[in-house]
Amino acid sequence: MHIGFIGLGKMGFNLVGNLVKHGHTVVGYDINEVLVEAIKGEGAQGAHTLQELYDALPEKRVLWLMIPAGPLVDKVIEQLLTVMQAGDVVVDGGNSHYKDSVRRHDYLKQKGIGFLDCGTSGGISGALNGACTMVGGDADVIEPLHGVFRDISVEDGYLYTGPAGSGHFTKMVHNGIEYGMMQSIAEGFEVLEKSPFPFDFEAVAKMWSHGSVIRGWLMELTEHAFSNDPKLESIKGRMFSSGEGRWTLETALDLGVPTPVIAMSLLTRYRSLQDDTFTGKVVAALRNEFGGHAVEKK
Amino acid sequence: MHIGFIGLGKMGFNLVGNLVKHGHTVVGYDINEVLVEAIKGEGAQGAHTLQELYDALPEKRVLWLMIPAGPLVDKVIEQLLTVMQAGDVVVDGGNSHYKDSVRRHDYLKQKGIGFLDCGTSGGISGALNGACTMVGGDADVIEPLHGVFRDISVEDGYLYTGPAGSGHFTKMVHNGIEYGMMQSIAEGFEVLEKSPFPFDFEAVAKMWSHGSVIRGWLMELTEHAFSNDPKLESIKGRMFSSGEGRWTLETALDLGVPTPVIAMSLLTRYRSLQDDTFTGKVVAALRNEFGGHAVEKK
Repeated sequence: MHIGFIGLGKMGFNLVGNLVKHGHTVVGYDINEVLVEAIKGEGAQGAHTLQELYDALPEKRVLWLMIPAGPLVDKVIEQLLTVMQAGDVVVDGGNSHYKDSVRRHDYLKQKGIGFLDCGTSGGISGALNGACTMVGGDADVIEPLHGVFRDISVEDGYLYTGPAGSGHFTKMVHNGIEYGMMQSIAEGFEVLEKSPFPFDFEAVAKMWSHGSVIRGWLMELTEHAFSNDPKLESIKGRMFSSGEGRWTLETALDLGVPTPVIAMSLLTRYRSLQDDTFTGKVVAALRNEFGGHAVEKK
Repeated sequence: MHIGFIGLGKMGFNLVGNLVKHGHTVVGYDINEVLVEAIKGEGAQGAHTLQELYDALPEKRVLWLMIPAGPLVDKVIEQLLTVMQAGDVVVDGGNSHYKDSVRRHDYLKQKGIGFLDCGTSGGISGALNGACTMVGGDADVIEPLHGVFRDISVEDGYLYTGPAGSGHFTKMVHNGIEYGMMQSIAEGFEVLEKSPFPFDFEAVAKMWSHGSVIRGWLMELTEHAFSNDPKLESIKGRMFSSGEGRWTLETALDLGVPTPVIAMSLLTRYRSLQDDTFTGKVVAALRNEFGGHAVEKK
């Protein structure tokens, strides 16, 4: 199949390589000219403008976005709308909010243009060698594309999740689960680290990766991280996040679902970005007020 | 190697089968005579008393306990002490508290008897086909037994964790991590379940088991659970626990390690065992006191 690919960052670049490997004809575009040149080395055609990308595709064009979530997706869709025709399909492979995807689907549908929201998991290596894809959208729009999603995914790693928005909803929840799993693994290793025993964290993670109940890719990545830096002395414990954990919690609040562990994982990330807290100052001050307990002065 | 195995429950029975498969000569004992007869079918010898078990073993006996943690372990050790000689080794393969294991190690060491604390993970199928074992104890005591632990474990699934107590400590933390991971997975599925989309939970778990960041054995088990009962309608959401999550939290408190997710996972299990809560009554009463908010009458 012919595919126009917009956004050749770490994920997009590898997904194009994956598509080409599976015999698809890909035209790649990025605002970064260096990436447009580099993608040619992966067996894809490079396009220097959206117009050029669009013109290189046969009718019923498939325009696959792999760009940062947010207003940029709307901006690119508006740019594409100056050239797109009824029958074209936009695939949003990024981490967009599912409500934005529902809105974009409805907006494009009025113009006869299809929209699929594709959550993509598996990291950068998965993008190249076999990803995990969860895709929502209209059944008739996705029908001709099932094979493409299946091609770029590992076996059984592709699911058509249902109506528009459900793909990005599924990916959002996947990332919320990921926050909780990572936090739980990390807390366990801190208990080991503060224990009276001289544990070899890499060896523990390796052993837990083989035959234990908690084995899985995150434990393998934990092993790999400790193999590079046995006590993680070279990095700070500041935990950034890119939005999907927060959206999972916001969605849980909307739906009235108690998700204490996902909530706590997110709040623990926020705490990690503070060197000191106002909460801490207030509690310290109150202990001093009622009990004369010592406070630590700045 | 000759091994005396005490406790032929679900885990013990399968571990004996595993040992026999690897060419070890096993004598099995259980208070349940039915299991003693059944173990013969696995190629082991059955013993009807601890004395009979002990007498069937050559010197430097290896006595492997796979019995419920707690006072029973001390009781069986005391019974064994009436016959054991210096040079014998006791392996505790159950989920004992690591502090009990340190105590038992020190106690038996005074009598010239070795003690190894072996955390065993991987479930019932792992016990038979390849477990994950984390073993603490004195280096000279474990030396002749490395091969046995390696035999019953999957490749790279055995680790000598260090001094006495470190094996059960590692297993305790493993289970603490397991609580958090399970709770996070479960919360994610409840968000899916309360969402506006008609998700097929089994299909989602299957897809997430293939290529996603959160893939692993627990996600495969999630898929399996949904394959038996697509909406889990046949079971109640009551989450029992057998102690190791609580010990992980107690240990974290001892060591001053903040483990909010593991703590919350444990407390959420406790909450699940209550039909109504006194906390809920107090909050409802207070909202009524200050704001006249309605309370629901019993």
